[in-house]
Amino acid sequence: MNKTVNVAIMGIGTVGGGTYEILTQNHDYLLANHGIDFRVKKVLDKNLERVKSFGIPESAVASGVDEIASDKDISIVVETMGGVEPAKTFIEKVLLSGKSVVTANKELVSKHWPTLEAAAKKGGAGLYFEASCVGGVPIIRALRESLQANHVNSLVGIINGTTNYILSKMTEEGMSYADALKEAQSLGYAEFNPTADVEGFDASYKLSILSSLAFHTCIPFQHVYREGITGITKADIKAGKELGYVIKLLAIGKRSGDTVEVRVHPTFVPADHPLAGVSGSFNAVYVNGDFVDDLMFYGRGAGARPTGSAIVSDVVYAAERTEPIYSDFENDGKIAAGITIGKDFTSKYYLSVSAPDAPGVLAALAGVFAKNNVSIETVLQRGGSGGASISFLTHTAQESDVRRSVAEIEKLDDANKVVSLVRVLS
Amino acid sequence: MNKTVNVAIMGIGTVGGGTYEILTQNHDYLLANHGIDFRVKKVLDKNLERVKSFGIPESAVASGVDEIASDKDISIVVETMGGVEPAKTFIEKVLLSGKSVVTANKELVSKHWPTLEAAAKKGGAGLYFEASCVGGVPIIRALRESLQANHVNSLVGIINGTTNYILSKMTEEGMSYADALKEAQSLGYAEFNPTADVEGFDASYKLSILSSLAFHTCIPFQHVYREGITGITKADIKAGKELGYVIKLLAIGKRSGDTVEVRVHPTFVPADHPLAGVSGSFNAVYVNGDFVDDLMFYGRGAGARPTGSAIVSDVVYAAERTEPIYSDFENDGKIAAGITIGKDFTSKYYLSVSAPDAPGVLAALAGVFAKNNVSIETVLQRGGSGGASISFLTHTAQESDVRRSVAEIEKLDDANKVVSLVRVLS
Repeated sequence: MNKTVNVAIMGIGTVGGGTYEILTQNHDYLLANHGIDFRVKKVLDKNLERVKSFGIPESAVASGVDEIASDKDISIVVETMGGVEPAKTFIEKVLLSGKSVVTANKELVSKHWPTLEAAAKKGGAGLYFEASCVGGVPIIRALRESLQANHVNSLVGIINGTTNYILSKMTEEGMSYADALKEAQSLGYAEFNPTADVEGFDASYKLSILSSLAFHTCIPFQHVYREGITGITKADIKAGKELGYVIKLLAIGKRSGDTVEVRVHPTFVPADHPLAGVSGSFNAVYVNGDFVDDLMFYGRGAGARPTGSAIVSDVVYAAERTEPIYSDFENDGKIAAGITIGKDFTSKYYLSVSAPDAPGVLAALAGVFAKNNVSIETVLQRGGSGGASISFLTHTAQESDVRRSVAEIEKLDDANKVVSLVRVLS
Repeated sequence: MNKTVNVAIMGIGTVGGGTYEILTQNHDYLLANHGIDFRVKKVLDKNLERVKSFGIPESAVASGVDEIASDKDISIVVETMGGVEPAKTFIEKVLLSGKSVVTANKELVSKHWPTLEAAAKKGGAGLYFEASCVGGVPIIRALRESLQANHVNSLVGIINGTTNYILSKMTEEGMSYADALKEAQSLGYAEFNPTADVEGFDASYKLSILSSLAFHTCIPFQHVYREGITGITKADIKAGKELGYVIKLLAIGKRSGDTVEVRVHPTFVPADHPLAGVSGSFNAVYVNGDFVDDLMFYGRGAGARPTGSAIVSDVVYAAERTEPIYSDFENDGKIAAGITIGKDFTSKYYLSVSAPDAPGVLAALAGVFAKNNVSIETVLQRGGSGGASISFLTHTAQESDVRRSVAEIEKLDDANKVVSLVRVLS
């Protein structure tokens, strides 16, 4: 009854190495439970030292992608190289040769999913990417095969480990952004060039994938409104705490009728919301469906072992499925006809304004908000030698109205400055 | 490309009605996403009024299970009758006739899974029961198809909505057990005879199913150590709070090597643990795997709509899968050879002792613990007119050593009484 399934791994870095480790360490376990004798027949990586450091024999190193694509014994190829090229070319080649591909590459999937899926269909192969979003957390499988009954109304996630680590350090230990980033870099949680994480690109790639699945239409990542965490100060975090909030970089996808909102930005999360407790390198996705109501999926968002767990889960899945599954929407890279991306979303807002400490200032600011239909829930004013610091918490307002208010406030008096604007989850 | 799939629903109560509602309300949505035209062709229920209250036409009511089993057009049958009989007989009949069955019936699955699975295999049909555990939370799909790479080390869940509602009311509003139960009953969260929930039977059925899947061996529910919440007092909850704990009815499954522990009992959960925030009718399962590390699945544990969501997810799954999936272990109702159920587990413990307020009492109690290898972490003593109340928090200790200590303490002096014993999650 047992069958042998030969696997190739392209890219033996941290995650590729972790995948190799699971397939070898848990080989007998997978054989016992699934009747599949998984063998890593070939790997592709130029760094021989790194390959050998994982105990992979030199004889398994392929000369190039063609050696893998043309190997009739190999039926599943894992891609853990990262980046767009040459990963894209390699994946297309092996898909067209009829081998299923399992990838952890969110940038590639979010940028070239239609091309890859077309190649998969042409080759009669499967394309699986559970590991591309939220590490070991099986959110993609859940969206595809557990929430079918539901219209997903919203999906709110902490889906980038680096920024969550930095913000947690700033919140829990009072660190500055710069110091927290430095610590994250020294521990390997942030890259030397941290832009992709701290500016929200990584989260926008993942949100693009997750919202496409949740809302059944392509949502290209370019449509995701994106704001990073580099402007977050200790003062913002302190103000949030005083008002009962914890700051998180949230990825938010919402669908209401034919309007879809997708955005990544720092957000004040109410301290008693389940997402508020998601700290450090943990990630979570909070989903609301019309029948299932609220769900949360929580776990390690990165790391060789959790990401490897998601990859091997896809490998087993691909080995057991006789028919691959594809997107349940037209995967052509375009937003489906009739669907609009709502750029002018609504939210509650926290704004901190520095202004001259003079009579009438609060009245003037309040007047600007009122004129623009922004209703204020709470005001906190502190005087000081350098002027006043006034914080506003708004009721739900329109993004455009708030932006217009900000522009008008800064025009009102040269000394006025909107120091912070943080959206608030409600 | 579209195909029609005819479905029958046996038992049109709350959950069966919710299932019907999803299949009709979201009919076009399921057709658009999955290319499947689901039709509820027949229902089985003697209560015509109830059937009609869901807008089901009288013409759809079957005369008996045979009419459903012999209907060649029907390929999937949903069972939402509850209880063991006649559900068991009905399910076997339709499985043998080659129709896949989707059920929410945890009592039936935990008691007769091997028989039902044998019938499914014989009929070439699938048996799906996502809805039997933790309502709309896709924990069964996750254990079966997302965590394959992992040895599951532990699974800790709040998996009974009724008891979580009662304990939450006692904790958050200071209610007594009796009052909280009464409120739960008046809201329909607890049954008139609440035994199955408050004594932990329901949780033990679900734990039996979940641990069997997680540990890849049958774990009959009779092996689950079970303790309910009827003895929990306001004093226990208050003491927990002082020590930084929230009380929850936990279902705990652990596997270490060839030893499996399965138990359901009230437990002090550290206030900063993700499970501590799972309140009211929400449920959650916390899973630890050797590669994925910690994961949590959170959502509505009961109710027509969330449970209906899980059922319809299984219905879609059954309609799309050409080959049904079965257990990946020998499903013969017996614990696999070589595996032992560890009855003498280890835990931290909270014990509250009432004793005469006399010199030497604390020393005597401490002596009993020491003699039995139970090491004490914290002691709290309060004197009073009626005697002393002494609370102990232990380090990790053996269940048998703690039980022996309790017996010896009560033998030491007729006036000594161990008023509470609560295990502590660590």
